[in-house]
Amino acid sequence: MFIRMTFTAAVAGASGYAGGEILRLLAAHPDVEIGAVTAHSNAGQTLGQHQPHLRSLADRVLEPTTAEALAGHDVVVLALPHGASGEIAARLPDDVLVLDLGADHRLASAADWETYYGSAHAGTWPYGMPELITGPGTRQRESIAGARRVAVPGCNVTAVTLGLQPGVAAGLVSPADVVAVLANGYSGAGKSLKSHLLASEALGSAQPYAVGGTHRHIPEIAQNLRTAGAPDVTISFTPTLVPMSRGILATATARLVDPATPDDAIRAAWQDAYADEPFVHLLPEGTWPTTAMTLGANTALVQVAVDRRAGRVVTVTAIDNLVKGTAGAAVQSMNIALGLPETTGLSVEGVAP
Amino acid sequence: MFIRMTFTAAVAGASGYAGGEILRLLAAHPDVEIGAVTAHSNAGQTLGQHQPHLRSLADRVLEPTTAEALAGHDVVVLALPHGASGEIAARLPDDVLVLDLGADHRLASAADWETYYGSAHAGTWPYGMPELITGPGTRQRESIAGARRVAVPGCNVTAVTLGLQPGVAAGLVSPADVVAVLANGYSGAGKSLKSHLLASEALGSAQPYAVGGTHRHIPEIAQNLRTAGAPDVTISFTPTLVPMSRGILATATARLVDPATPDDAIRAAWQDAYADEPFVHLLPEGTWPTTAMTLGANTALVQVAVDRRAGRVVTVTAIDNLVKGTAGAAVQSMNIALGLPETTGLSVEGVAP
Amino acid sequence: MFIRMTFTAAVAGASGYAGGEILRLLAAHPDVEIGAVTAHSNAGQTLGQHQPHLRSLADRVLEPTTAEALAGHDVVVLALPHGASGEIAARLPDDVLVLDLGADHRLASAADWETYYGSAHAGTWPYGMPELITGPGTRQRESIAGARRVAVPGCNVTAVTLGLQPGVAAGLVSPADVVAVLANGYSGAGKSLKSHLLASEALGSAQPYAVGGTHRHIPEIAQNLRTAGAPDVTISFTPTLVPMSRGILATATARLVDPATPDDAIRAAWQDAYADEPFVHLLPEGTWPTTAMTLGANTALVQVAVDRRAGRVVTVTAIDNLVKGTAGAAVQSMNIALGLPETTGLSVEGVAP
Amino acid sequence: MFIRMTFTAAVAGASGYAGGEILRLLAAHPDVEIGAVTAHSNAGQTLGQHQPHLRSLADRVLEPTTAEALAGHDVVVLALPHGASGEIAARLPDDVLVLDLGADHRLASAADWETYYGSAHAGTWPYGMPELITGPGTRQRESIAGARRVAVPGCNVTAVTLGLQPGVAAGLVSPADVVAVLANGYSGAGKSLKSHLLASEALGSAQPYAVGGTHRHIPEIAQNLRTAGAPDVTISFTPTLVPMSRGILATATARLVDPATPDDAIRAAWQDAYADEPFVHLLPEGTWPTTAMTLGANTALVQVAVDRRAGRVVTVTAIDNLVKGTAGAAVQSMNIALGLPETTGLSVEGVAP
Repeated sequence: MFIRMTFTAAVAGASGYAGGEILRLLAAHPDVEIGAVTAHSNAGQTLGQHQPHLRSLADRVLEPTTAEALAGHDVVVLALPHGASGEIAARLPDDVLVLDLGADHRLASAADWETYYGSAHAGTWPYGMPELITGPGTRQRESIAGARRVAVPGCNVTAVTLGLQPGVAAGLVSPADVVAVLANGYSGAGKSLKSHLLASEALGSAQPYAVGGTHRHIPEIAQNLRTAGAPDVTISFTPTLVPMSRGILATATARLVDPATPDDAIRAAWQDAYADEPFVHLLPEGTWPTTAMTLGANTALVQVAVDRRAGRVVTVTAIDNLVKGTAGAAVQSMNIALGLPETTGLSVEGVAP
Repeated sequence: MFIRMTFTAAVAGASGYAGGEILRLLAAHPDVEIGAVTAHSNAGQTLGQHQPHLRSLADRVLEPTTAEALAGHDVVVLALPHGASGEIAARLPDDVLVLDLGADHRLASAADWETYYGSAHAGTWPYGMPELITGPGTRQRESIAGARRVAVPGCNVTAVTLGLQPGVAAGLVSPADVVAVLANGYSGAGKSLKSHLLASEALGSAQPYAVGGTHRHIPEIAQNLRTAGAPDVTISFTPTLVPMSRGILATATARLVDPATPDDAIRAAWQDAYADEPFVHLLPEGTWPTTAMTLGANTALVQVAVDRRAGRVVTVTAIDNLVKGTAGAAVQSMNIALGLPETTGLSVEGVAP
Repeated sequence: MFIRMTFTAAVAGASGYAGGEILRLLAAHPDVEIGAVTAHSNAGQTLGQHQPHLRSLADRVLEPTTAEALAGHDVVVLALPHGASGEIAARLPDDVLVLDLGADHRLASAADWETYYGSAHAGTWPYGMPELITGPGTRQRESIAGARRVAVPGCNVTAVTLGLQPGVAAGLVSPADVVAVLANGYSGAGKSLKSHLLASEALGSAQPYAVGGTHRHIPEIAQNLRTAGAPDVTISFTPTLVPMSRGILATATARLVDPATPDDAIRAAWQDAYADEPFVHLLPEGTWPTTAMTLGANTALVQVAVDRRAGRVVTVTAIDNLVKGTAGAAVQSMNIALGLPETTGLSVEGVAP
Repeated sequence: MFIRMTFTAAVAGASGYAGGEILRLLAAHPDVEIGAVTAHSNAGQTLGQHQPHLRSLADRVLEPTTAEALAGHDVVVLALPHGASGEIAARLPDDVLVLDLGADHRLASAADWETYYGSAHAGTWPYGMPELITGPGTRQRESIAGARRVAVPGCNVTAVTLGLQPGVAAGLVSPADVVAVLANGYSGAGKSLKSHLLASEALGSAQPYAVGGTHRHIPEIAQNLRTAGAPDVTISFTPTLVPMSRGILATATARLVDPATPDDAIRAAWQDAYADEPFVHLLPEGTWPTTAMTLGANTALVQVAVDRRAGRVVTVTAIDNLVKGTAGAAVQSMNIALGLPETTGLSVEGVAP
């Protein structure tokens, strides 16, 4: 005899890009049935009007985003603007698994939150990055198992953390002067109607944003590297928008603690860190990740090189910002939290070319 | 009790774009186990060197493309250059399901083949477009059921045929002066190292090719429209390369037989044709297909409008050229041929934005 | 002794894409000095805030768009939304050269205007397409010479007209069933904040718009082909947005009047039409235009082929929509109207790759 | 009375991207007449076959690249692969102005050349970056005046040097741990037929190359920063290819020497450095450069910010790699060397959007 449990899931913010992506993944998940889909100003319209690529859900009608509409599901995914999830999450029962795709519950430090977001801190939830190194032989997934609240990490944060944490955790690279520059697809900016997000401005051009230490993902990266074992983290972080819809290519460098550390030891740190990870892969030497390799997949591809003249380790990490960077991480955490196999419903193969 | 059959599948031409895409789909197919993967000049190398996005198959070694390497599988997919599949197919046992992604076995007319390809015709196989209207109430899928040889349609052909056939079959539009102009992603041109396929030439530019009635897909479109009921087909067909990797957006127009045909009757023809199709969807009035809506999916999205002043019906069809246009059509046909549910292992949701 | 006249020019709508492009061209024009630059909601801000690529004009302050601000210049360019130029033009002196980049004064038929634009017709001005064939041996430039009001043509109209008019004027092709499908860059849609114009929606995708005979450029194309000698014009016209910022690639086909017309006679019609044109070039046989070849230039590149099976001539024309399609045509017309050499200040070389 | 000198110029390597761009600029230069255009394997073909966007030169026939073909011109531009210019330059008369777009004569240190290029050093020529700070109040343009050999800088080098040198020369930032990550358009890679340069691989993707301190532009950047006043330079440099044809967006960071240096002092260093430069512009605070702003122009746009937490200055510089990064720098240097106004024939306005 065979019993298969099915979990019901509601999605708030279903008309946005993150909401659309979580619905795409949940529609393919064998153990989930999609329940309420909600939106704010688009309530009353069909999902097909806002997410026409989600063919199997085209006729679903968007309900207003309220605790009532979200009630009665096993899982609730909040794909809301930063600052909006705290209040609604507080009104959901404790035994419902709530996955917050926004930033509200990621930071442990209320001071960090206030510095970068300028509002009251909503609190801290278990952090949904299963591969985060939390100590010798331990990973963040252990804190996700059985959790009923999960703060899904930021997309840029995921790329930079996965690139650097093996060296930080092994004590081989210094977190004291990390520099990260990212090539970002436009979907990370959401559906906001801003002139610099217009196709005419984006096509054939590259543009930076949030330069000079102002990006809100900075304290989250620092928090992760501290979790991975670094006492004191300093990071210069610059994202740049490049003409692609999806994808993050993060180049993150850190100084070698001991300039004489042999290449093998460095490579071994990254290999050991990810040898058993289903979704984070260190590529063979000489192969460099591209974002296309990860499109639509929950895969993070990492490569590391040593620049002896500069005394720095250079890591490059590619992810799909909407999958491993957002919705895929949410499903992966959901699987862990619900006791399902971690990889259920998630693909490792990118849609390329 | 529950028995699940698993079919083994070999893929020839596994280092190319079509080969990579069929592998991506078969890796996700619950009833298929991937066996031999073969290539020509790349034999001996790993799949990871050529298809680094196919993470679960990265360590597979490419064997030389020979009948011996392909033997012993339930299914063989030939993703070879035009003209290369006839010989190798002839050496495969009759009870093996052979799916030819190339053009060799698509045309019923040897004369057509010789005119457009300039070589000897390899023969005609059952045509792998399940939705092709073959008569009142009948579809091509009936000819695929149980077949052990399937000629998978061309990508441009699929888009134009699906756009126009409802009106042709219903006798509402004339096939006598069809005009089709397509916006095509570059992956349709394969991995050939040609200067007009370089990124520097493609980015920020649109370029036509095979203008003036020379494209080899023309006789195949005509053949399909004849199958759908048109006695005499004339088609002007112009593909244009636009800066995207995947996707075909086909604008295909045909004259109304009776200029007074009401809009409702026209719309009804398209609605009736696709109401029960799992992968071909007529969009709601006013919504126009985009290629992004179909990326990675086996979906064809169709819209139709009437231009009364021009006396023409205008259809726009979007597909992913590598999925519904190639590898997805192959899997769909494979499912039918093997008696599996037609939709097994195929997604309808596009990866957007 | 040497005297060089300098003309002063004001630009209304200077913060938009068309306004920016006319400023880019006028800044390089040896006989023009840029005077007032005006805007509507952006008045009071600097040009550098809206057109940061116009380095030499960055500190200019945008004045409100009023007849007063525009007064006192030799030339006034109106880069305003459709429907906005009639009123302001009426308040400018008759001896000022007014170039209207909008549609308001292009159509000779008030009925056409009302059908497609739904408002009162502002009147008809000399039409600013110098190469338009107006009769045996005559061109539209003769009507522009000395004019003080010029209606600059639409961008799509320019591409389709230049592609087809040689065959129409020579009586070789029928204007009775023209079909045109265009690949369009996004800048043609202006800076409007609409969700389908966002980079995330555009990148990696192609999307049609104004399908089914609704596009406002249709009556203007028909008017031009009538001017070129066609008594009765029918046109099916479909633009499609593709992921590039600039450029139009227009595929326009028309039926041969006499299917037996030899290739040479057809080619000769196009060659004769454009042999002496400085900005419209018929490419050598076998070379097809791409939009990149025309980027930033006032060049239209045309190619023609005969599809004997389809009984159609197929033309492909590439232009930069903001130059030959808008601002370059304005400067060319300005040169003619002012008695300057027609090519002054205009480049024929595209910025490629 | 008025006498205008005209200089004749030959271009070797005229069928490549750099060769095409120098021809585009020289065709618009009022004091230059283009003479011989030469190529290697494409000799005997027309320029129109390889540079169809250069309309005014389409009928020019490519001669073989020999000293004989290049003789008899006032200016010779070498747009040849690295390593190829030394031999041919040696055979040109001393009084001919030779502009080498390749790397052969850029480095002062033969050892650096041999380390990064692995061949014998061809020698060192005056370096063609007029804005390079060579001491208090002095610039490199002084060494170019009257020169008859000029080594044109590398494109990445130009972007990084212009971004950082004001702070280095002012002693405000340390050159000891510079990190630069660049977003690069594909034209920088030339017309080579390599699979990672195919449109299908580039579109929708970002990919790094030459990671880990191996890029040949590194010693040239270090040389420039030493010239600007830094005794000891260490640089981590990572270029990444992003889906655009042209453009470099360089994010370059360096540590503050004194963390307490006020913002004003830092900004003043950049303002002072570029206040009088015609082609290098510090943007107003809060405006960040994009590559589109510089397309087709000889402009470098620079912005600087201070990240107090990271203790780093972050600079972002945008250039068109083929203009200010290559051919425009050559024309600018040519103007200086020949005693023409430095800005002759060069545009500061980018072609945007």
